[in-house]
Amino acid sequence: MSRLDSIYPADRVTLREVGLRDGLQLTGRYPTTAAKQDWLGRESQAGVRHFEIGSFLPGRSAPQFADIAEMIRTCRDLGVTSAALVLNDRGAVDAVGSGVDEIVCVVSATEEHSQANMRRSIADAVGLVSKTVRLAADADHQPVTHAGIAMAFGCSISGDVALDQVARIAGACAETGADVIGLADTVGYAGPDQIALSCERVASLVGATRLGIHLHDTRGMGMANAAAALDSGVRIVDASLGGLGGCPFAPGATGNIVMEDLVFLCERKGFETGIELDRLVGVREIPATEMPEEQLYGAMARAGLPGASWRAASLQNQR
Amino acid sequence: MSRLDSIYPADRVTLREVGLRDGLQLTGRYPTTAAKQDWLGRESQAGVRHFEIGSFLPGRSAPQFADIAEMIRTCRDLGVTSAALVLNDRGAVDAVGSGVDEIVCVVSATEEHSQANMRRSIADAVGLVSKTVRLAADADHQPVTHAGIAMAFGCSISGDVALDQVARIAGACAETGADVIGLADTVGYAGPDQIALSCERVASLVGATRLGIHLHDTRGMGMANAAAALDSGVRIVDASLGGLGGCPFAPGATGNIVMEDLVFLCERKGFETGIELDRLVGVREIPATEMPEEQLYGAMARAGLPGASWRAASLQNQR
Repeated sequence: MSRLDSIYPADRVTLREVGLRDGLQLTGRYPTTAAKQDWLGRESQAGVRHFEIGSFLPGRSAPQFADIAEMIRTCRDLGVTSAALVLNDRGAVDAVGSGVDEIVCVVSATEEHSQANMRRSIADAVGLVSKTVRLAADADHQPVTHAGIAMAFGCSISGDVALDQVARIAGACAETGADVIGLADTVGYAGPDQIALSCERVASLVGATRLGIHLHDTRGMGMANAAAALDSGVRIVDASLGGLGGCPFAPGATGNIVMEDLVFLCERKGFETGIELDRLVGVREIPATEMPEEQLYGAMARAGLPGASWRAASLQNQR
Repeated sequence: MSRLDSIYPADRVTLREVGLRDGLQLTGRYPTTAAKQDWLGRESQAGVRHFEIGSFLPGRSAPQFADIAEMIRTCRDLGVTSAALVLNDRGAVDAVGSGVDEIVCVVSATEEHSQANMRRSIADAVGLVSKTVRLAADADHQPVTHAGIAMAFGCSISGDVALDQVARIAGACAETGADVIGLADTVGYAGPDQIALSCERVASLVGATRLGIHLHDTRGMGMANAAAALDSGVRIVDASLGGLGGCPFAPGATGNIVMEDLVFLCERKGFETGIELDRLVGVREIPATEMPEEQLYGAMARAGLPGASWRAASLQNQR
């Protein structure tokens, strides 16, 4: 079985916890290394197997990820997959040397966002994917490579994004040999029909089993968009505990889709996630304690699973 | 054009604001009549055309609806549709006499809930639908009749509900001559695939244009379920401003799906709602002021529409 198949089995849904990366990069306060390791431990005990745990950046510019080597070791000790972002050549070299299981490169869907976000062209961003793939291929542990296309459903700088453009970039990333191609609704512009259309188009190019989706719940479409992606054959879905992870220029906007609610969606759609919701909800204690200023979202944490706790109560005129 | 076609045009989506009924029946505090009339005025100016404004009950048992006659008049003056619940024979007579545009009867999908909620059998509840239809047919203004099936996707008292049972009850309600048959996920058990399966089955019995959906966002599936209903041909969808309307035995659980977010979903799916989102969001001021202890939900109110306000901001490593 290839490394890719072992990390992303084609016959099941893989839910990627990105809260430890996406959820920490904008917060004033962030958890201690010990608290993050406890988070990894408890969420993996709940059944989550895949964690995006940071970015390879100089510790000065991202102190919340300065402990990334320890986090990677902790994932290995727990027997779960570690993933990290790389943003430049130096990061790619460091990532491959770190033993991280999956290396994620970000490619913007628009030149405007590419320049604003990473001060480089789309072509240069695809070049970094290509370089990362080559470095990974030469590494003993053969990390999986993942190209995430930001603003794939609309760009807050340049507006609408043509699906042809997204398909072109996805194709270019796939040609570099990247194992996984991700489509990201970075700023929450998409509706479910656009998600379905885009996922089906890109899946036809790169294969549905190599396609991932990264959704933000900025405008409340997160679960509807996740359902549309799953219906389109996508089996790699990002989410974060409590919906952690915001958008720096949408004050108060929710972040990623909520992992706890996504688990309920998947189970209701007949996918076995292997995740125990009650235990997963319990892990919210850690960010709630470590990042008290961050709002945690999610309906499952409020309502709980359907069942006994709901019984024997009186209803008045409820419809 | 029939009364039904004028209230529910088959060629468009009708969004029913139920916050003034469902949203008020469990609150300790409720808005003054003047505030509710302001709410109707401002939400209708935003483009919402259909309002469920109360239940026909003795004023003692439901003081928040004691002003229902004034609310019906206000709707008429504003040129929008008024709808109200009836829970017994007396209520049916009062409703027909009140001039309300639409009369809603509730039928439970399970005997256990029917007894717990209204101390009557399902057969007796269908009997009230039948009586209401006959009374409405004799009335000069020919009110539309609507049978809402509660717990249609799962019951907090008796658990799973067989689709055959829901279809049987929906068929019985349709046979009474009720204009609209509604399916309600009263306690938020459904996922989108169950919604699609159920809506398609019931639509095949009663016709998609006569089918309505009433969703609670208890477990965060609301928008995914609304998308599934729209994809199944449902064109009558309930929602409430700010997601008002709770469940008396799920503390902290969200209520109805959020009208503001549903409008965005519909527009993203290509349905023209005729609703101005910015003005709609502004109406939240009224419940926020009148019912300060009630939490208002919704992402659109936080994030706003995609567009100019999003531009010219710097992103760091956003995916």
